Amino acid sequence: MPRHSIITLLTDFGYQDPFVGIMKGVILGLCPNAVLVDLCHDITAYEVLAGSFLLQSAVRFFPPGTIHVAVVDPGVGGPRRPILSQIDDQFFVTPDNGLLSYPMAHGTIQVVRAITAQQYFLQPVSASFHGRDVFAPVAGHLARGVPFERFGPEITDAVRLPIPRPHLDAAGSLFGQVLRIDHFGNCITNIAREDIEAFAAGGVRVQLNDRSLGGIVQFFGEAGRGGCGAIIGSAGYLELFAHRGNLARQWGIATGDTVRLEREA
Amino acid sequence: MPRHSIITLLTDFGYQDPFVGIMKGVILGLCPNAVLVDLCHDITAYEVLAGSFLLQSAVRFFPPGTIHVAVVDPGVGGPRRPILSQIDDQFFVTPDNGLLSYPMAHGTIQVVRAITAQQYFLQPVSASFHGRDVFAPVAGHLARGVPFERFGPEITDAVRLPIPRPHLDAAGSLFGQVLRIDHFGNCITNIAREDIEAFAAGGVRVQLNDRSLGGIVQFFGEAGRGGCGAIIGSAGYLELFAHRGNLARQWGIATGDTVRLEREA
Amino acid sequence: MPRHSIITLLTDFGYQDPFVGIMKGVILGLCPNAVLVDLCHDITAYEVLAGSFLLQSAVRFFPPGTIHVAVVDPGVGGPRRPILSQIDDQFFVTPDNGLLSYPMAHGTIQVVRAITAQQYFLQPVSASFHGRDVFAPVAGHLARGVPFERFGPEITDAVRLPIPRPHLDAAGSLFGQVLRIDHFGNCITNIAREDIEAFAAGGVRVQLNDRSLGGIVQFFGEAGRGGCGAIIGSAGYLELFAHRGNLARQWGIATGDTVRLEREA
Repeated sequence: MPRHSIITLLTDFGYQDPFVGIMKGVILGLCPNAVLVDLCHDITAYEVLAGSFLLQSAVRFFPPGTIHVAVVDPGVGGPRRPILSQIDDQFFVTPDNGLLSYPMAHGTIQVVRAITAQQYFLQPVSASFHGRDVFAPVAGHLARGVPFERFGPEITDAVRLPIPRPHLDAAGSLFGQVLRIDHFGNCITNIAREDIEAFAAGGVRVQLNDRSLGGIVQFFGEAGRGGCGAIIGSAGYLELFAHRGNLARQWGIATGDTVRLEREA
Repeated sequence: MPRHSIITLLTDFGYQDPFVGIMKGVILGLCPNAVLVDLCHDITAYEVLAGSFLLQSAVRFFPPGTIHVAVVDPGVGGPRRPILSQIDDQFFVTPDNGLLSYPMAHGTIQVVRAITAQQYFLQPVSASFHGRDVFAPVAGHLARGVPFERFGPEITDAVRLPIPRPHLDAAGSLFGQVLRIDHFGNCITNIAREDIEAFAAGGVRVQLNDRSLGGIVQFFGEAGRGGCGAIIGSAGYLELFAHRGNLARQWGIATGDTVRLEREA
Repeated sequence: MPRHSIITLLTDFGYQDPFVGIMKGVILGLCPNAVLVDLCHDITAYEVLAGSFLLQSAVRFFPPGTIHVAVVDPGVGGPRRPILSQIDDQFFVTPDNGLLSYPMAHGTIQVVRAITAQQYFLQPVSASFHGRDVFAPVAGHLARGVPFERFGPEITDAVRLPIPRPHLDAAGSLFGQVLRIDHFGNCITNIAREDIEAFAAGGVRVQLNDRSLGGIVQFFGEAGRGGCGAIIGSAGYLELFAHRGNLARQWGIATGDTVRLEREA
């Protein structure tokens, strides 16, 4: 029982409604000793891949056996399945819509099960709030010790969305894109530390939408107050920033914008 | 003691100040094993009836004996009383200003007590933060086992605000209103599933501010991407939506706007 | 162990990213029975002194032995030290950048230690997220019982920022400023109850940017609906408000604006 007692929640439900609190009530009713942790509830509504990226950036910092309930679910009430997955030593309760694309790409999938055992749902199941009626109660039952295999049959066709990867052009530049803009206006790209190491043994020069950011610095302050720069961010990806500023706002950056790396001459 | 250990918090304090965190510190100082759950802190400032509606939508998903601390309290420091109530198997610590109107209308009131026992307050009691000085410590003492009747005398005149109900017009249409707009721009109305069943045995046609939304669908996706529709929402009320969109923003809807149902020909 | 089990978190990380949730994962991995409380994560980015003020307003309501992790840290990754402090009976894990200026000014500093024991950090330490790699794990180790002195040597030169204090002018008026605008648009000033008592035995008249707010009232409602007034707020400071309104928005008030008190004739 203590094995499974941490349950995280990641949704696009925002903070103005009691939806997340209601999910916690359902979980605590089933597993009073669950420890509930909010990962983030401000995923842009319906943006499954953004939720997947944030989920991946967080889960590896949780103890083995943690249960992650993630609900970004535009298809709620329709034919999409709920699934229960184990990736590495973490558990996931989610809709089968690609929300696990990043964790699946970065970890080892142990098993994925379609959740079909309706006796673990809150009845009657509503058509619009499976967070409350399906995902929270399944997490609660799992946390209190219901064996994994009771929730439904193993599947091998879980939905995985294409993850945008950096690529080389003919002239030898490495192209990536802005995946995520954080609270500080820092622009997290899809170029991983390993991509850069494979691309250039020496230094690189970074451009964002054709504006130069120079080389990669070791910490924000190196750029000087208000200065812009590039750093390997805390999730292991190239990140573009304005020191004590907000790069995305200052330069008008949006997700999907182009990042270009050139080898230093 | 474990009987009372879940304590929820619902306020209009927002997230930019440490007010809610301070209330939790006070509670944990009195009852270290309390399990604290945020319901929602983004009630529009001073909107007692909106807070009441959200409280009601949440409380029935919590285990028996849960204590709900709700503070939307424009009259703080003035003559309004603090009260301690039991409705069904849930406890409530609130100002006596109508914040329990919805829970009282939907449940069975077991007892309401004026909180007069100042030995359970944080002294000195400020004039502007009874969440910290009155409601949190009363919840903490209750959770640690102080008997219900010690907090003050039973009363029978707790404030109840009028709840807007749908009504029939002479031509046989059912009129309701938008009660609440959620994070997704879905418009929750005051027309309950039971109201619709009593109104029409067959289908109905839904209008919002004289624009047609068609019949009631079973799940969001039925409306097609970007399509607008009506559904029985997760709280049991008619809800109007744009699939993967934001109906309230797209159509300029505000709370109080008119919803009209006609029987299908 | 139970002595140290409450851990609060105050940051400028906002709510749109999983940064705070990640810190909680790290802490729970080290100390599974920690009780985690969010104080506030909406400090304006990089505003160390605002964070310090809010921290001070909250910490005295927590039980002895509470650990406060506060991260407003524009210098992350640079030469600024992480420190571990005890002020009165509370513990603090913070960057050494002035974030403890208010708690240090209002409490008794028991000891401040530079955190140098890297065996308690999450390795490898990133350059941009010491909340995750330094402050959270140090709090987790402290909560699980690692003795205070193991984290590093005592220091006596922790950074303390100047705290703006009210002052008298030649004509005998007391001048202060707006320190903080809260969620309700209330303007919290740097004039404490004690400052006012020392300034005038009788009543005072309050002006904000040369507009009169009259005398000090006992509770918000005294000002009448929509009326503006001054009150001694819940943190013990003069606070300016519009009853059921938003003074800061209505009058265009910003932090730093001038407040003036005159003795009543």
